[in-house]
Amino acid sequence: MKTYLDCIPCFFRQALETARATTDDENVHRQVLDSVASLIPELPLEVTPPEIAQQVYRIVADITGNRDPYHEEKWRANQVALSLYPRLREVVADSDDHLLTACKLAIAGNTIDLGANPKYADINSIIESALVSSLSIDDYHEFRDSINNCQRVLYLGDNAGEIVFDRLLIRALRQIKDFDIDFVVRERPIINDATLADAIYVSLDKVAGIVSSGSDAPATILSQCSPQMLRLYHSADIIIAKGQGNYESLSREHKNIFFFLKAKCQVVARLLGVSVGDAVLKRQSVAAPST
Amino acid sequence: MKTYLDCIPCFFRQALETARATTDDENVHRQVLDSVASLIPELPLEVTPPEIAQQVYRIVADITGNRDPYHEEKWRANQVALSLYPRLREVVADSDDHLLTACKLAIAGNTIDLGANPKYADINSIIESALVSSLSIDDYHEFRDSINNCQRVLYLGDNAGEIVFDRLLIRALRQIKDFDIDFVVRERPIINDATLADAIYVSLDKVAGIVSSGSDAPATILSQCSPQMLRLYHSADIIIAKGQGNYESLSREHKNIFFFLKAKCQVVARLLGVSVGDAVLKRQSVAAPST
Repeated sequence: MKTYLDCIPCFFRQALETARATTDDENVHRQVLDSVASLIPELPLEVTPPEIAQQVYRIVADITGNRDPYHEEKWRANQVALSLYPRLREVVADSDDHLLTACKLAIAGNTIDLGANPKYADINSIIESALVSSLSIDDYHEFRDSINNCQRVLYLGDNAGEIVFDRLLIRALRQIKDFDIDFVVRERPIINDATLADAIYVSLDKVAGIVSSGSDAPATILSQCSPQMLRLYHSADIIIAKGQGNYESLSREHKNIFFFLKAKCQVVARLLGVSVGDAVLKRQSVAAPST
Repeated sequence: MKTYLDCIPCFFRQALETARATTDDENVHRQVLDSVASLIPELPLEVTPPEIAQQVYRIVADITGNRDPYHEEKWRANQVALSLYPRLREVVADSDDHLLTACKLAIAGNTIDLGANPKYADINSIIESALVSSLSIDDYHEFRDSINNCQRVLYLGDNAGEIVFDRLLIRALRQIKDFDIDFVVRERPIINDATLADAIYVSLDKVAGIVSSGSDAPATILSQCSPQMLRLYHSADIIIAKGQGNYESLSREHKNIFFFLKAKCQVVARLLGVSVGDAVLKRQSVAAPST
């Protein structure tokens, strides 16, 4: 999708939030916002939002000198999610349709902000509600059919913590057959996105090959991806793309992509025809959308 | 209060929303945001948010050539509110404490976005809920005591539509005694704020003197006010200030001010110690707050 003018206030909000995660110095926060402002008149709106977000986060990193402001938050998210893992496995095992339950939990993993000192009671209620709620876009049957007819899966990860829920879905896939599964992480820390260190910490490497995107974009920007990642992308029979960033960057691609996400802003919700907060399992349209 | 960095994304959002109310031309929207961006590095954060908002709205007006983009919306808000007026009078008349009920309705008037094609069912439920809910900051008893001991009231208005609810409160005051009441409107259209034309349309001039602030600020910025308005301000025994804009611009004043408002953003809600959406009737502290 292209970048909308509505994204501009949001870039400022994200920049301020990240600058604050780095330092309490208001002069630095101000300097960050001034620099983001200087970017605005140059912004090419035909590019995707994560491409601009990447520039915004680079500004924050350059000014604050901190290239991983969410380091501790990511760590905590991984630990919280790992502590939930045995129970989540039981939930899947006890369900009628293991794959569907694992899909819903993988989307719930994109919902829960595990890094933000979550309360276990809240997490439990989000999980319970994810299991009983229906998906606002529900292409699960197409996903299951597609999975049954394919061998090579490329799984585009999103956040730390969430990757434990992804491990659960990969496990459910492996119960169906012995897929070739590669899991893509970001090359370097950006926001709370999962990197190689996170994937190894939660033992994702035990169930999938771990590949770096080759980029620090908070999304899958193909022009920035490594040759290895692009080979896997083009040879995959099916691509599972987690989170809004991967949707924003790949919504114009002609590939067999299934987007698993929670709609987190008005712009994306409107494009998808859902409400903010809704859970979505959407197959990419064969014809590229105009957005 | 000073301007917070959190206000910056909000200025962009407001500029975009207002530009869109004026034209569908995305190039114009973009030009507006670029101009607002060029303002950011120069922003003096020690001034109040409405002073910056005023500059932002001037940018929108200069670029779009439209100095009253909410003209129709304001008109509709006045009409909707007028159609409610007979029922609101009954509600006050049937209540145990006429003044309290009128105060709550005056705050509800700041809550309801009457210009945005409201549904009557929604308005009714907001009014019902305003009447049964308690105020999150409730200085009503101080207000009543203060009113009993004063003669000259200055009433600082906020939005079109809402001024019908203000007429109701002025009427309740007049039932107590024959106050000298002046009602302040903006000098020229800004956002959906009430001007002289709105006040006359809803017959506010039948219950109060109508005075222009002398400024098109969406608030009461004393340095911009006319000598007439300042004379009234300094000679008033009590000032009723409606809406968040008047709070933002007067929160550092040492005067007998009562703020009637709904908290509409996180920054103001945090300063007041309430939640976004809460109804507030707050007496100005005698010592000026540090914000």
